[in-house]
Amino acid sequence: MKQFTAVHDVTDIDALVKDALACKETPFAWHELGKYKTLGLLFFNPSLRTRMSTQKAAYHLGMNVMVLNVDKDGWKIETEEGVIMNSDKAEHLKEAAAVMSQYCDVLGIRSFPELKDKEEDLKDQVLNDFLKYTTVPVISLESATRHPLQSLADVVTIEENKKVARPKVVLTWAPHPRALPQAVPNSFAEWMNAIDVDFVIACPEGYELDEQFAGNAVVTHNQEEALKDADFVYAKNWSSTTEYGKCVVQDSSWMIDNQKMSLTNEGKFMHCLPVRRNVVVADEVLDGEHSLVIEQANNRTFAAQAVLKNILKGKR
Amino acid sequence: MKQFTAVHDVTDIDALVKDALACKETPFAWHELGKYKTLGLLFFNPSLRTRMSTQKAAYHLGMNVMVLNVDKDGWKIETEEGVIMNSDKAEHLKEAAAVMSQYCDVLGIRSFPELKDKEEDLKDQVLNDFLKYTTVPVISLESATRHPLQSLADVVTIEENKKVARPKVVLTWAPHPRALPQAVPNSFAEWMNAIDVDFVIACPEGYELDEQFAGNAVVTHNQEEALKDADFVYAKNWSSTTEYGKCVVQDSSWMIDNQKMSLTNEGKFMHCLPVRRNVVVADEVLDGEHSLVIEQANNRTFAAQAVLKNILKGKR
Amino acid sequence: MKQFTAVHDVTDIDALVKDALACKETPFAWHELGKYKTLGLLFFNPSLRTRMSTQKAAYHLGMNVMVLNVDKDGWKIETEEGVIMNSDKAEHLKEAAAVMSQYCDVLGIRSFPELKDKEEDLKDQVLNDFLKYTTVPVISLESATRHPLQSLADVVTIEENKKVARPKVVLTWAPHPRALPQAVPNSFAEWMNAIDVDFVIACPEGYELDEQFAGNAVVTHNQEEALKDADFVYAKNWSSTTEYGKCVVQDSSWMIDNQKMSLTNEGKFMHCLPVRRNVVVADEVLDGEHSLVIEQANNRTFAAQAVLKNILKGKR
Repeated sequence: MKQFTAVHDVTDIDALVKDALACKETPFAWHELGKYKTLGLLFFNPSLRTRMSTQKAAYHLGMNVMVLNVDKDGWKIETEEGVIMNSDKAEHLKEAAAVMSQYCDVLGIRSFPELKDKEEDLKDQVLNDFLKYTTVPVISLESATRHPLQSLADVVTIEENKKVARPKVVLTWAPHPRALPQAVPNSFAEWMNAIDVDFVIACPEGYELDEQFAGNAVVTHNQEEALKDADFVYAKNWSSTTEYGKCVVQDSSWMIDNQKMSLTNEGKFMHCLPVRRNVVVADEVLDGEHSLVIEQANNRTFAAQAVLKNILKGKR
Repeated sequence: MKQFTAVHDVTDIDALVKDALACKETPFAWHELGKYKTLGLLFFNPSLRTRMSTQKAAYHLGMNVMVLNVDKDGWKIETEEGVIMNSDKAEHLKEAAAVMSQYCDVLGIRSFPELKDKEEDLKDQVLNDFLKYTTVPVISLESATRHPLQSLADVVTIEENKKVARPKVVLTWAPHPRALPQAVPNSFAEWMNAIDVDFVIACPEGYELDEQFAGNAVVTHNQEEALKDADFVYAKNWSSTTEYGKCVVQDSSWMIDNQKMSLTNEGKFMHCLPVRRNVVVADEVLDGEHSLVIEQANNRTFAAQAVLKNILKGKR
Repeated sequence: MKQFTAVHDVTDIDALVKDALACKETPFAWHELGKYKTLGLLFFNPSLRTRMSTQKAAYHLGMNVMVLNVDKDGWKIETEEGVIMNSDKAEHLKEAAAVMSQYCDVLGIRSFPELKDKEEDLKDQVLNDFLKYTTVPVISLESATRHPLQSLADVVTIEENKKVARPKVVLTWAPHPRALPQAVPNSFAEWMNAIDVDFVIACPEGYELDEQFAGNAVVTHNQEEALKDADFVYAKNWSSTTEYGKCVVQDSSWMIDNQKMSLTNEGKFMHCLPVRRNVVVADEVLDGEHSLVIEQANNRTFAAQAVLKNILKGKR
C-alpha cells in the first residue's frame, strides 16, 4: 500500500479487514516491523479518537510517533499556488510537506473542509497537496471529503457483528446543532458500496450525498421505511449538500430512539463518535445492548494498525 | 492497587513510600513491567510538574504514554446526565471514558474545581465519572478535591528528611493574588492524618478546611504559635472555604520569611510549586538551605512510579 | 560538550560537522547511547522543524523525549529577580529550571526576543537563566540572539555542497511583512566567521548586524555586488537593528529571483524556512535545481543528533 486516503487505495478489502482482525487478536505480533520508523501525525483540526487510536496502532508496531497540532504548535500554512505570501500564513505547504518527508517515514494528515464552497472542498486540497509534495506514504486522518480509517473500522465492526451473509445496512442522517462535514457519510457510503451489503441511505431532501460517494445506493427521504429490517443502523449528521454547508434541517423527528430501532431486525446501532446524546440518538439506544459505538472506536486502533502494517511492508 | 485518587485507596502507606524510595534508588529496575502497556494522561487543566514527572515515571517502567489536552487537542466534554446535548459540548464523558479505556491500560485525569459551588466541587464529578465509566485503573493527577500524587511525594520527602520519629508538621495558609483550589491542602491534611506525625493547620478565620479532610488535626488561626518547634513547614494558599472559592484575605503578614522560620526547630520548608515568590514565601527561605521544594518536585516522579508499579502489578 | 548555545561552545567545528555527517550516514549506529536518557524540549514560542528534527535526532539515539509548550501546557514564567510575584506569572524560572533538571538529562529551550529593547534582548535572559539554574546540559532551540542548531545544519549543508575549498557565502537581507528576530542571521554570521569561507553580508542601511555577530565580515548595502560570483546565497529577513525591532524597509527589490541568482557562480540558494514565497524569494528559485532549503531542513536532524551525541558522551 502506497497511500490510504479512500477505499480506492485498497486492492483487497477482505484481506485488509482480516489483517485488522489479526492485529486485534495479537496486537504486538508485528512489533519489529516499525522498528526505526517514524509516524508523523499532523492535525489541522481537533481529534481525540483518531489521535489516540493511531498512536496506539503505531505503538503496537514499534513505531516512533511525532504529533503536531500544525496551527497551534507551529503556524498557519499557505496552500495557494504562486501567491505572494504577505498575509498571516508563514509557510507554504510545499515546504512543510517536503520537510516533514525528511523527518517521517509515514505521514497522517487531518484537515477538515471549510464548508463554504462545495467545489473547493471537493478538491480536498490540503490532503492532495500533501500527496503531491511528500515523498513518503500518506494516511488520511479525515480529509475534507472522506474519513477512511473510520470507514475501515466500521467495516471491521460490521464483519464482526453480522448475523447474515449480506446484512442490510442503513446510513441515516440525524439532527445536530452545528453544521458538520460530509466526510464520514461520504466515506461510509463508498466503503458500503464496495462490500457485499444491502445499503440504504436515508436523509432529508437537500441532504443527498454527492453521486461519487453515494454511487448506486438506494436513497430515500423516508427514514422509517429505510430502517425496516435493518441489521445495522449507522446514524450521522451532515450539513446540507444543496444549500452547501448550511444547517437547514433541525427536525428532531430524525433522532434515533428505541421506537425507531424497533422497526429493525434487532439492528445494531453505529456512530463514529463524538455523538450528541438526545440530539442524534436517545440515551436509551446509546446505553442499550445493541449499541456498537465503543467497539467501533476500539476497532479504530486495528484499522490504523492494518493500514500501517501494509504500508510498512510495502516499504521493506 | 485498582485506583489512586486519595489516601483511602492505599492499603499500606509505609509499603508504598518504601516502593517510591526503591524506585528512586534504581529507577529502571522494573523497566519490563510496563512493556506493551499504555498510560493515557488527560488534562482538563494546565500542568507542568505532574505532566513531566508522570511521563518520566511511566518511562522508567517501560510504558508508552499518550498525552491529551482534552479541550485544546479535542473538544469540550459534557458531564450532565440525561442532557440534550445541543450546547458547545461535543462529546459526553460516558463515551470519552469508555473509548479511552479501549486505548489505554491506565488513565490519569487532571480536572480542577470551578470554585463556584462548594457542594458541586465536593462531588468531584469529572474524576468520579471517569471512575464510573472507564474499565481501566484511574490515577488522579489532581482533582477538584485532592492531589494525591503530590501528597505521596510530600510524605516521601518528609520520610527522607525527618530527624525525629514523630516530627511536627505545620500546614500553613499563605497569601496569593488569585483564588486557588483546596485540593493540595485537603489532600496533604488527609495524608498527614494517616501517618504518624504531630500535625497542625494554621489558617485565617473562614479558611478552615472541610472536616472530611482536616479530620482531627489541630487547627489554629495563630500562625506564629503553630510554627513553634515545627520540623516541617508546608506553606500553601487556598481560597476561602466559608465564602467559598473567594479570595477574601490577602494579608501579607502570613507570608513565610526567615523570621517566621526562626520560630521552628530548624524546620524544613515545603511547597508543592508553582509558588509566588515574595507573596507566599520570601526569596530568602526558598533559596535557603532549609528549602525542600526541588526535592519534593523530584519525588513526584517516584511517587507516580510507585503508584504505576502497584497498578501494573495488580493487572498481572 | 556541556552546552550548545553558540559557536563558542564548540571546541572543534570540523569534528562536529563530521559527526553530523556520520549520523546522516548511519542514523541508528548510536541507538544505545541515549538509553534511559530523557530530553526535555521547552517551547516558549512556536516551532515546526526544530520540534520535529530534534525529536527525530533523540529517537535515533534511543532517548525518551518530553515536549512542553510552556505557556500553553503550563503557565507564564517569571524571569525578574527579587520580584513580588503578584501579576499573571505563576512560576519563577528558578523553580521551573531546577525542577525540569530533575526530570530531564538534557534540556532544549526555545525563546524568542521581544524586539522592543535591544539591550534587553541581547541579554538573552531566558536562555541564560536556564543555563544558570539548570543542573543539566542545555541546548538552544533558538534564543533571543542565536539559532545554533540551524547554523550547524547550514555549515553541514555548505560542506556537502561546496565545489571549491573556500567558497564565497553571501548572507543577504530579504523583505518580509512582519518584524522578525535577528537570531538566524546573527548565528549564521558567527559560524561563517568561524569556518574557512569568503563571507559577505548584504543588507539595507540600518540593518547592520551587531558587531559581536558580524565580526570581520565584509558588509555591503549593494546586494548585486555582493551576489557576484557567490557559491552560496543565504537569504533571510531580519528587523531593523538601528530602529530596533522595527520593519522599516519593505523594498521588494531585495527579493531573490533568477535574475539575481544569475549574478552568482551557479550559486546554491539557502534559507532556514519557513519562507514567504515571492516575498523573500521567487518561486522560480525555491523550486529550481539550485535550492538547498529542503536538504538544510533534513540536516537539522543530524546537527541535533551530533550535538546530543556529544553531550551524552560527555555525561558517560
